[in-house]
Amino acid sequence: MSSEITAQGEKKLVLATGRAHPELAEEIARCLDTDLLPLAAYDFANGEIYVRPGESVRGTDAFVIQAHPAPMNNWLMEQLITVDALKRASAKRITVVSPFYPYARQDKKGRGREPISARLIADLYKTAGADRIMSVDLHTSQIQGFFDGPVDHLMAIPLLADYIRTRVDVSNVTVVSPDTGRVRVAEQWAERLGGSPLAFVHKSRDLTVPNQAVSKQVVGQVQGRTCVLIDDMIDTGGTIAGAVRVLKEAGAKDVIIAATHAVFSDPAARTLAESGAREVVVTNTLPIPAAKRFEQLTVLSIAPLIARAIKEVFEDGSVTSLFDGKA
Amino acid sequence: MSSEITAQGEKKLVLATGRAHPELAEEIARCLDTDLLPLAAYDFANGEIYVRPGESVRGTDAFVIQAHPAPMNNWLMEQLITVDALKRASAKRITVVSPFYPYARQDKKGRGREPISARLIADLYKTAGADRIMSVDLHTSQIQGFFDGPVDHLMAIPLLADYIRTRVDVSNVTVVSPDTGRVRVAEQWAERLGGSPLAFVHKSRDLTVPNQAVSKQVVGQVQGRTCVLIDDMIDTGGTIAGAVRVLKEAGAKDVIIAATHAVFSDPAARTLAESGAREVVVTNTLPIPAAKRFEQLTVLSIAPLIARAIKEVFEDGSVTSLFDGKA
Amino acid sequence: MSSEITAQGEKKLVLATGRAHPELAEEIARCLDTDLLPLAAYDFANGEIYVRPGESVRGTDAFVIQAHPAPMNNWLMEQLITVDALKRASAKRITVVSPFYPYARQDKKGRGREPISARLIADLYKTAGADRIMSVDLHTSQIQGFFDGPVDHLMAIPLLADYIRTRVDVSNVTVVSPDTGRVRVAEQWAERLGGSPLAFVHKSRDLTVPNQAVSKQVVGQVQGRTCVLIDDMIDTGGTIAGAVRVLKEAGAKDVIIAATHAVFSDPAARTLAESGAREVVVTNTLPIPAAKRFEQLTVLSIAPLIARAIKEVFEDGSVTSLFDGKA
Amino acid sequence: MSSEITAQGEKKLVLATGRAHPELAEEIARCLDTDLLPLAAYDFANGEIYVRPGESVRGTDAFVIQAHPAPMNNWLMEQLITVDALKRASAKRITVVSPFYPYARQDKKGRGREPISARLIADLYKTAGADRIMSVDLHTSQIQGFFDGPVDHLMAIPLLADYIRTRVDVSNVTVVSPDTGRVRVAEQWAERLGGSPLAFVHKSRDLTVPNQAVSKQVVGQVQGRTCVLIDDMIDTGGTIAGAVRVLKEAGAKDVIIAATHAVFSDPAARTLAESGAREVVVTNTLPIPAAKRFEQLTVLSIAPLIARAIKEVFEDGSVTSLFDGKA
Amino acid sequence: MSSEITAQGEKKLVLATGRAHPELAEEIARCLDTDLLPLAAYDFANGEIYVRPGESVRGTDAFVIQAHPAPMNNWLMEQLITVDALKRASAKRITVVSPFYPYARQDKKGRGREPISARLIADLYKTAGADRIMSVDLHTSQIQGFFDGPVDHLMAIPLLADYIRTRVDVSNVTVVSPDTGRVRVAEQWAERLGGSPLAFVHKSRDLTVPNQAVSKQVVGQVQGRTCVLIDDMIDTGGTIAGAVRVLKEAGAKDVIIAATHAVFSDPAARTLAESGAREVVVTNTLPIPAAKRFEQLTVLSIAPLIARAIKEVFEDGSVTSLFDGKA
Amino acid sequence: MSSEITAQGEKKLVLATGRAHPELAEEIARCLDTDLLPLAAYDFANGEIYVRPGESVRGTDAFVIQAHPAPMNNWLMEQLITVDALKRASAKRITVVSPFYPYARQDKKGRGREPISARLIADLYKTAGADRIMSVDLHTSQIQGFFDGPVDHLMAIPLLADYIRTRVDVSNVTVVSPDTGRVRVAEQWAERLGGSPLAFVHKSRDLTVPNQAVSKQVVGQVQGRTCVLIDDMIDTGGTIAGAVRVLKEAGAKDVIIAATHAVFSDPAARTLAESGAREVVVTNTLPIPAAKRFEQLTVLSIAPLIARAIKEVFEDGSVTSLFDGKA
Repeated sequence: MSSEITAQGEKKLVLATGRAHPELAEEIARCLDTDLLPLAAYDFANGEIYVRPGESVRGTDAFVIQAHPAPMNNWLMEQLITVDALKRASAKRITVVSPFYPYARQDKKGRGREPISARLIADLYKTAGADRIMSVDLHTSQIQGFFDGPVDHLMAIPLLADYIRTRVDVSNVTVVSPDTGRVRVAEQWAERLGGSPLAFVHKSRDLTVPNQAVSKQVVGQVQGRTCVLIDDMIDTGGTIAGAVRVLKEAGAKDVIIAATHAVFSDPAARTLAESGAREVVVTNTLPIPAAKRFEQLTVLSIAPLIARAIKEVFEDGSVTSLFDGKA
Repeated sequence: MSSEITAQGEKKLVLATGRAHPELAEEIARCLDTDLLPLAAYDFANGEIYVRPGESVRGTDAFVIQAHPAPMNNWLMEQLITVDALKRASAKRITVVSPFYPYARQDKKGRGREPISARLIADLYKTAGADRIMSVDLHTSQIQGFFDGPVDHLMAIPLLADYIRTRVDVSNVTVVSPDTGRVRVAEQWAERLGGSPLAFVHKSRDLTVPNQAVSKQVVGQVQGRTCVLIDDMIDTGGTIAGAVRVLKEAGAKDVIIAATHAVFSDPAARTLAESGAREVVVTNTLPIPAAKRFEQLTVLSIAPLIARAIKEVFEDGSVTSLFDGKA
Repeated sequence: MSSEITAQGEKKLVLATGRAHPELAEEIARCLDTDLLPLAAYDFANGEIYVRPGESVRGTDAFVIQAHPAPMNNWLMEQLITVDALKRASAKRITVVSPFYPYARQDKKGRGREPISARLIADLYKTAGADRIMSVDLHTSQIQGFFDGPVDHLMAIPLLADYIRTRVDVSNVTVVSPDTGRVRVAEQWAERLGGSPLAFVHKSRDLTVPNQAVSKQVVGQVQGRTCVLIDDMIDTGGTIAGAVRVLKEAGAKDVIIAATHAVFSDPAARTLAESGAREVVVTNTLPIPAAKRFEQLTVLSIAPLIARAIKEVFEDGSVTSLFDGKA
Repeated sequence: MSSEITAQGEKKLVLATGRAHPELAEEIARCLDTDLLPLAAYDFANGEIYVRPGESVRGTDAFVIQAHPAPMNNWLMEQLITVDALKRASAKRITVVSPFYPYARQDKKGRGREPISARLIADLYKTAGADRIMSVDLHTSQIQGFFDGPVDHLMAIPLLADYIRTRVDVSNVTVVSPDTGRVRVAEQWAERLGGSPLAFVHKSRDLTVPNQAVSKQVVGQVQGRTCVLIDDMIDTGGTIAGAVRVLKEAGAKDVIIAATHAVFSDPAARTLAESGAREVVVTNTLPIPAAKRFEQLTVLSIAPLIARAIKEVFEDGSVTSLFDGKA
Repeated sequence: MSSEITAQGEKKLVLATGRAHPELAEEIARCLDTDLLPLAAYDFANGEIYVRPGESVRGTDAFVIQAHPAPMNNWLMEQLITVDALKRASAKRITVVSPFYPYARQDKKGRGREPISARLIADLYKTAGADRIMSVDLHTSQIQGFFDGPVDHLMAIPLLADYIRTRVDVSNVTVVSPDTGRVRVAEQWAERLGGSPLAFVHKSRDLTVPNQAVSKQVVGQVQGRTCVLIDDMIDTGGTIAGAVRVLKEAGAKDVIIAATHAVFSDPAARTLAESGAREVVVTNTLPIPAAKRFEQLTVLSIAPLIARAIKEVFEDGSVTSLFDGKA
Repeated sequence: MSSEITAQGEKKLVLATGRAHPELAEEIARCLDTDLLPLAAYDFANGEIYVRPGESVRGTDAFVIQAHPAPMNNWLMEQLITVDALKRASAKRITVVSPFYPYARQDKKGRGREPISARLIADLYKTAGADRIMSVDLHTSQIQGFFDGPVDHLMAIPLLADYIRTRVDVSNVTVVSPDTGRVRVAEQWAERLGGSPLAFVHKSRDLTVPNQAVSKQVVGQVQGRTCVLIDDMIDTGGTIAGAVRVLKEAGAKDVIIAATHAVFSDPAARTLAESGAREVVVTNTLPIPAAKRFEQLTVLSIAPLIARAIKEVFEDGSVTSLFDGKA
């Protein structure tokens, strides 16, 4: 007898998912050749959520996958409660996998007295017990700094751009930002497509018409070109459909819309379908119900990318390669 | 000139409210002879909430009143975001006023791997920036210990009991707990009513009938007596209506139900209306829409109690008196 | 040469104990087939405690076992100092094993301005460096939520109840709570014994005698029955001995007392011995010196239960099974 | 005699400054009609800094003004040590005033394994004891969310733009961003100047010349117009001077450079002087030694803006007005 | 009506005391012309302590005075619980007044695996809710850095030295440290007495006797001189009495012992009385029961010094003056 | 398929270094038979530092070696930023290796309102993400308690003393402290050298000359002896050279200076070379450029000691042995 007992270390990966978008979690699990953790989760009539893992998670490396469509606060609370349950059930490390980061747009005090809800979300994850966060195409990269710990920031541009390449003549493409805030991202797209020219849509005076009032204008040349109109997310689709219209008026030959997060608040589906865009390409970071699908829509799966990242994190490999040299 | 500038201190009280139950906040404001803080709050289509105080709150003593009916997580997030906004807008002290504490029932690990959501809520309040919490009739008093700071735990028993006294012959009352977990609270009621006997409803064998199977029984004597059936909250009303039935079968002359929090998940209104109880007395810690009201229902207002507590906290007076020597 | 050196992981378990109840720690070590960590610990004349582990604990999974009889604060400080020493000596994970949780009864603000000492204890453990807590039969389950991390809450009811079954005719048992606060626990006992009826002792008016003053009464039927009078702890024994008397007066055939924690403050031994109870069954979560033992006392060892829990925690197995489906 | 002693509250403002840019602090003090706190500060030969306030700061509302030119880390440490000294000397509230936020450009993980130094800075301020931060024109607004507390984010655009208005014919102005990342800020400038058109400089193919290689191009129309080339900071001046050249080649009539922070690393002064810009307008958030001044340079003082913000914070007034409806 | 209520600020001072040394607290209260806060405090038989303030402390500036004689851990826990009670009762600021800092001697890892209990104590105070600490003559000044907040470190040397001056011919004094660790403090004494020579006692070889074994020697000249033998605390008195003997053997004319903290563990009183010292001067930072007093003992009261410091802290004045230019 | 994926644990050690003293880090790496982590690190012109690890560090046990010569704040920030980068790149454990602890001399409030910069440094390390600290010969051992986690405090006395033994006749040695604050350390040296006598230098009156003014005196006998004059660090060398002179005047035969940290601020090299000391022995915890070397200087390498400590920490062995029974 001695005063020590020894045991060999062994790491176990566990995938848990909330109920917001189970298909995505299942596809990730298939990519990793494993099953999802059985998880009892249900709502009380007054809105409270109850969660309980169906088997021991003691000592495991747990990933809590949740999407955040409406009702977003509900899915967020479910995810926080799940993290709390795993913490108290002694999971060794807990990674929150939120492909579409909640409240990402509220990332600064635009005006005095506004909250910075995106920071609040990072703190809530921390408080619940999360050790790290994994997300895709954050609204601004600075959100990584809101969390006090590692953030795996995955990029969907390669996935989207590689698909776009199969659909267009790259030499005739102009990459267009729908407003002044995304021009930097448009530049990253342009590099990925081989140095395409850039343009953006913006409200200003048309210099070619004297005394003209301020209106939406394209800055940059788009005449006769195939415009790839990019954004990180499409919410109601109003801004981006307006951009399609302005591009067409400015002589664009064709417009393809590409965005990572299909928030698709009503009436996005109809607005986009009728916008005149040839194709709308998005990923499934958010669930897209049948009623919100339309003819021109193409949905690429983000699951293989997330699965690879989870595998790298679990094996302490490098996630950097998944950023394609850009993140 | 010297190296110091001085100014006289002056404390300012600000009342903010979420959108869950504005009537309660307005009534509290009237009791305090003040107005609510103007607050811009609206929802994005995907469920995100935006909040912004309409005027400066710098240096104020702010109270953020919110009720938590369904959809509870939404109201909770709105309250957290409001606290975050006030913190970043430099409020001096922030008190969360949550008359019905969210997730109060999930206050322990009933089984392995369960979360303790009530503790999580306390931590979320802290993380958002709350300095103190004010609540009414916590499901268990231990929840006070979940928060690392002062908790003002207000008691509605005096309010309810004083009303009950006007409706019954106290000398013929038995106070009844609908299950084994509320007997201690029933005892507090009994003391308030002047030493009434106690009873509780419980699933067991009836000793007076040999070989009888286990069924719901009353433990304690209720025959010919007016039973005051008490609880901290009424959710779907099933348990409490079942208790009314058992009491009637056991010979109770009359049953009055008294509870602080009217959660009233469907089909509570109908269940209670048809339960055979003479009267159902609750408070307005939660909003009770017209559709959930019924003939036997009496709603007492909790606003004066909360207003007095807010005043005491603001003036650094003693809240203890509001506990009626019991809290 | 490369820029990394690798080594195989290996976990080591270390059992340390304070000086409050070394027999319990030794028995736990025997159950685990290991030795206790050599630990130099002594008191300075003015009451300061000095602790130093006698060998390296770097990288180990350490359990710090301590009981908390009088002088409780001393044993608590010794445990905190031991945790601090292990933290600074680089133990990888530190679990505090406190079978009888200190200050468990001060778990809420019963009245205004009271401390919540049980929360304070949880925070002190955290501050000293504890990663998790293991305890037996907490005064209220909510105490689990006081600690910001996993709590292994072991239950002694199965141990006690299985012993009781060998001593009584279960079909004639009534489980009795000595006051209104333990009726829920009595219900758990009743289920474990196969659905026994419940009763509790309480100060109220006897309905069968008109105009009678308030006195201690039994609520529930106990005439001719074997009463199992249960509690989580026995301190001076006054309340429970009073309950025995009331039960006897109410016609109980026989009374057996069962409790987890034998605090046994004077004059508990004499009070219990003379109470009229047929047997008093407790566990050894606290040391019971010879002077406090008496004829009717039976002490069951809690060591095997704790040893199994430590083993499960160390091996990242499930502690849930130790809760017997109840915790 | 009673058990309480009372005293009237009175707030005292204290201005402290590090040694990086004392002229700015002195000017702020003059605006506030007060003196700077006497502060002993000197360096040990090995680089350690020693700081000691020369009079009591107990209970005061202290502002620690520091600029961050090279050697930046030195000035940062001096500021942290000053905050620590004020904290331990019992200042009531400490606001860090860093007009040019250190490490603002390292605000995200551009690539894997990079630090987020701007977040680290916020945490260091917090650790040292800062309660709030005041800064001017953060590189990205998201940096506000890095600090867990209020951040007063002052904007120099109104100051700069109002001056520009006196120097140009606004109707012939185009606002130009020197790269793709500042187009949003250019838009804010354009609004302030009354809806001017926008342009940006960017590396891409010139569509008007077939088969042309990628080179720097202007996107947007600038021919014959007065270009206001804006940025938040000018470091070596290379990028911005390059932009002047491209604008001139594209037919711009005139170029005025406007930026908040004059970092002016060598050879900025010469590069700017020879760039062909008509005027270079900056503020004194950083000290600009005589050797770095040149004929076309105009320096506006930021001191009145900071002084007003300090006054508002001290008096718990609203800083929002200082943001000119934009922050 | 407006959306703000205002009130005038007013600060209230509250003095609370534990039960370790009530005379000291009462004397401090008299110096401040106030009463102590009524405080219910008693022990349960198993050692648990119960504390409850007898009146509201909401919004007050509270000082919790406690001495730390044996049983030290008890008094420490009482103080922590009192702080917790005041925190939860909404005191605005809480200062722990511990004239003799507990566990001050365990301020470093003397050997591997030792705790640093003095740091643990500082963290426990913080955890309980203390905002600042006031103490007298810390064993090492570095202990101030253990607490994350202001520490008022009061010095008793002026008090003691001014008394000594009335008892000796200063020109013939040598200040002696009883071991190698207090020579720096002896130097401070020497300065206070006007530049007296120093000596210390130490185990080494006597150079004047060849081949002599190692034994206790005086380093420094003491022959014919009045030695003031100083220390921060006297525990059992063994070391210091040994030093008196060695000094006498080395030809000292006379020895006066001066120390701040009279720990006086047995058999200190007898050891000191029989040591040959002419006088033993201490303060009452710790209670000295009659049984531990002896003829040569002089006890100076520390209460006026502490009272002045409390007053300065309350009024946000400067405590520095109490350090006599030395602290 | 099951719901768990398993992997074998494997620990990887990574050595990173800042740019302050790369030779030391390289020598440590050679001792451990490994390479340093490739690390991109460079300065922006305005003083900002950029750091990025050149390969994945996910899951590793990382040691960040940095020396702290002037410009110390720069090297400190570089180390903090490196720790931040490793934390965000998911290193499992990060140990800061700072052989000469920055700001070690500012370890207490010598006077009111001074900072405690050494505690601030510990907190900054913690904030950046350090899990533990390794350092050599801290100015005071209490600094260990400033960090909330394990501190490996290595001792250079054995290294230095073993070298000294080869240079002197131990029986004729007196160990001398250059002031009153290092007498305790001198005692440790004396023990290591076999019980040598002690002396210290101090400003006081010479008792052998009546009416003499205060001047520097040796306390202890040094006539005809070889004095080993010890200190933890040599800064400008003024104090220690003064001590050599006093010792010579007091008849010392010979003086050897021994110190761990060669800060060597100007004009240390010349002062020491001309001091009359036979030899000056230091270690390379700080870089000593050629210009600061002189004939009598001997530099011992600390690398093997640090390498052994890193190895022990990595393998969870005992570092205590490296303290030679003293630490």
